[in-house]
Amino acid sequence: MKPLEQFRLINTEIKQYEEALAVLYWDLRTGAPRKGMDTRTQVIGTLSAEMFARSTSQQLGALLTELESEEVWSELSPLDQSLVKESRLDYDRSVKIPPALYQQYVILTAQAESKWEICKEENDYESFQPLLDQIITITNEMIDLWGVKASRYDTLLDQYEPGMTVAQLDHIFGDLRDQLVPLAEKIAASPHQPRTDFLQQGFDVEQQKAYSKFILEQMGFDFEAGRLDESVHPFATGLNPGDVRITTRYLPNDVTSALFGTIHEGGHAMYEQNIGAELIGTTLCTGTSMGIHESQSRFWENVIGRSRPFWNAYYEELQSKFPQLASIDMDTFYRGNNVVNPSLIRIEADELTYNLHIIIRYEIEKMIFNEGLQAKDLPRVWNEKYEQYLGVTPPNNAEGVLQDVHWSGGAFGYFPSYSLGNMYAAQFMNTLEQQMPDVWAKVEAGDLHPIKDWLTERIYQYGKMKSPSELVQEITNEPLNPQYLVEYLKEKYTDIYRLEEV
Amino acid sequence: MKPLEQFRLINTEIKQYEEALAVLYWDLRTGAPRKGMDTRTQVIGTLSAEMFARSTSQQLGALLTELESEEVWSELSPLDQSLVKESRLDYDRSVKIPPALYQQYVILTAQAESKWEICKEENDYESFQPLLDQIITITNEMIDLWGVKASRYDTLLDQYEPGMTVAQLDHIFGDLRDQLVPLAEKIAASPHQPRTDFLQQGFDVEQQKAYSKFILEQMGFDFEAGRLDESVHPFATGLNPGDVRITTRYLPNDVTSALFGTIHEGGHAMYEQNIGAELIGTTLCTGTSMGIHESQSRFWENVIGRSRPFWNAYYEELQSKFPQLASIDMDTFYRGNNVVNPSLIRIEADELTYNLHIIIRYEIEKMIFNEGLQAKDLPRVWNEKYEQYLGVTPPNNAEGVLQDVHWSGGAFGYFPSYSLGNMYAAQFMNTLEQQMPDVWAKVEAGDLHPIKDWLTERIYQYGKMKSPSELVQEITNEPLNPQYLVEYLKEKYTDIYRLEEV
Repeated sequence: MKPLEQFRLINTEIKQYEEALAVLYWDLRTGAPRKGMDTRTQVIGTLSAEMFARSTSQQLGALLTELESEEVWSELSPLDQSLVKESRLDYDRSVKIPPALYQQYVILTAQAESKWEICKEENDYESFQPLLDQIITITNEMIDLWGVKASRYDTLLDQYEPGMTVAQLDHIFGDLRDQLVPLAEKIAASPHQPRTDFLQQGFDVEQQKAYSKFILEQMGFDFEAGRLDESVHPFATGLNPGDVRITTRYLPNDVTSALFGTIHEGGHAMYEQNIGAELIGTTLCTGTSMGIHESQSRFWENVIGRSRPFWNAYYEELQSKFPQLASIDMDTFYRGNNVVNPSLIRIEADELTYNLHIIIRYEIEKMIFNEGLQAKDLPRVWNEKYEQYLGVTPPNNAEGVLQDVHWSGGAFGYFPSYSLGNMYAAQFMNTLEQQMPDVWAKVEAGDLHPIKDWLTERIYQYGKMKSPSELVQEITNEPLNPQYLVEYLKEKYTDIYRLEEV
Repeated sequence: MKPLEQFRLINTEIKQYEEALAVLYWDLRTGAPRKGMDTRTQVIGTLSAEMFARSTSQQLGALLTELESEEVWSELSPLDQSLVKESRLDYDRSVKIPPALYQQYVILTAQAESKWEICKEENDYESFQPLLDQIITITNEMIDLWGVKASRYDTLLDQYEPGMTVAQLDHIFGDLRDQLVPLAEKIAASPHQPRTDFLQQGFDVEQQKAYSKFILEQMGFDFEAGRLDESVHPFATGLNPGDVRITTRYLPNDVTSALFGTIHEGGHAMYEQNIGAELIGTTLCTGTSMGIHESQSRFWENVIGRSRPFWNAYYEELQSKFPQLASIDMDTFYRGNNVVNPSLIRIEADELTYNLHIIIRYEIEKMIFNEGLQAKDLPRVWNEKYEQYLGVTPPNNAEGVLQDVHWSGGAFGYFPSYSLGNMYAAQFMNTLEQQMPDVWAKVEAGDLHPIKDWLTERIYQYGKMKSPSELVQEITNEPLNPQYLVEYLKEKYTDIYRLEEV
């Protein structure tokens, strides 16, 4: 076999292990019996170790060096060049971690995710804390092995959004906060507060499921290449473009949680379902970064899904499923779903204060890794920051520090992606409006597929072939610019809260 | 590491790959999206190849030889001795198959299982036939590699029921047929035919699900260590004793299909859930043979689940879920569920003619491997044998040769296990009645757990530690004896059909 073929084979096998592990994780989170979990986490550990061994083999290292040599490189297709580049990054990162440490990390986080689910349910932070401490310790060991960038936390950040730094984020998040806080204050002062009472009432769960399915179909989610299930914490996982799975949770007394959760995960799923066929079976066959991935979920959830034209198209169908909405007109429903209200739970937060939830997590994660904050102090710091930034105090840890799955999975450095996603989404929308001037007329007509096609052509099909900054530059002709998000929010809430009158 | 530790580690990893693969198969059969299947079967192929490499490594071969040496062997615990014996058998069998051939077989059968599901639905044997031919060809290659025993088919038979031969089965099945055919004729001639009209009417599927769950709980199925899902062809899979999964299918106009299907798979599941904790993580942690496994599913389904005392205990609950049964008394229901009626579909056959369905498959499998029968001729031979043995003609292949999943998975030699299971079950019941004289009073009181405990103590806990013949001899004090099944059926049907009057 030639070096390229050998390399492609190894890469395909790594991707296959990723898929097998993704099925095992999906299974753990969608109903695997509790008593089997100990054994299952050992299985995950062994498979991860095998994948890791392949990702760090001397053979792979030698092949990469060979493929990177000038005469071979120039003969490679653009796809193979991207694949070699991506593999080199991953190889250099992985090879620094001893296999035993990696396996320990994998087993620990699998255990912690299961434990977290129970602890959140039982509002029991104390039982969760030792596991979190271990995850922090092991993550610190890994930071040392990877090498500390500008700060310890920079090392983590770079893994989710390549090139992003604490210095940049401090600046961007500072900017956002400085502009969003006065906007939030104006909103709070407005006499035109939307009604929301009608959102909290009994909503038949079977009808919610049917509506979730309907909306996904409208968006262009392909049910022959994916499925919709239930889990405590909604998530999306792309096993391959022909099998992309999302979950949601249905609250019997709140229709919006499942609805917008489904659209959000649907956005992630559409990205994964529409990656180009030539990338299938390679490690390029996934979203290019967490920030771009979140831009897609939040684009569909907020920019499209919480827009007036969207509900002009789909409110009638919702009313037909839930007779209790018959007396609520579309505008009241639209405004109720865009209420700004500082609250406890990130995944239920409005588009504006959502960014403050992220800033809190960002600051806490910086404290953990740059200042040595320990797990035992997290509930206190968490609650203090919620009081300071949002003016609310969690009544318990389940609604506080235990609300997110991320830390139990070791995903420190992930949270900023959500706000980056908001910013990318607003910037993409600005370009879409210029290139497709009738885009909102299309939404209003219930014709969402041209939007899916626009995104597929510019983003989805490339998988990891293009970096986040390349995508943003190519699509919008400028780098990431948080001002688009600020302008988008100002315009939206000026209308909803009639701020020009305030 | 000492040889024993090294061996145990390899064995555990093999078991872990088995569990991962079992999850992937379960997933494929319980709702994995169609468009992802091609990629998924490649994933299964790679993982199977890796497991196979570990099962056939020179290192394992050397360790086995070392552990089998006299001085080491005598120091091993009984568990380790069993594990070495079992591994030796598996190693000797696996090492004869070249890895590339094995991987080809795994991918082929995974594809064929998916294809079978579609072809059965669409009554399309022609599209399935080329895959079946390939499976037969590759199975023949493997028989040559393993070595032909008394006949080619003997080689396959031995893998599901160690020690069983065509000569023995020809004798046993001949015996059975000679005694069951006249019994079936007497039954057909009886004027006391049970009513069955009430079984085919609308039965709410949600209520069927609830009742299936209720019955499993009564049997002692542990829902914290298992789950119940839906699939086209019901099956049970033991991932580990803490995670044993069964599926059933709910027909909207027939309550018995899901009911007895669930009890059947529940019997398999109880076996797997109650294997001793010390066997977890070893390849001994599963049922000892397909025949013994089927003895448990069919014991619970037929001997217990289709008995009069069982329905004395549970019929009231069934009536409360299905008001349309209010006017049907218990005895009518009991007799209706034990009607003997030669029919087309094996999994819906009665206890008596079921064995004729098995004999047909046994004879066809012998023809394929001992006489070179080809896939293209299977529908014809199938239909001829159904006419000859059961007096019925399949109207199409979906209800004929395409009805079972087994051949698509390459499971030639498995079918006889079902009838062996019937015979083992009747023999075990005979002993249980002697050792627990009030067993039927317990069933009638809805107290099934003593039966589960009796089976756990004698069968379940041992996993693969004891061979089928050891178990039967130890429990019943004699070898397998088909006469118990014949006597059981005679007694049961003499009562139901009042044969003493005929």
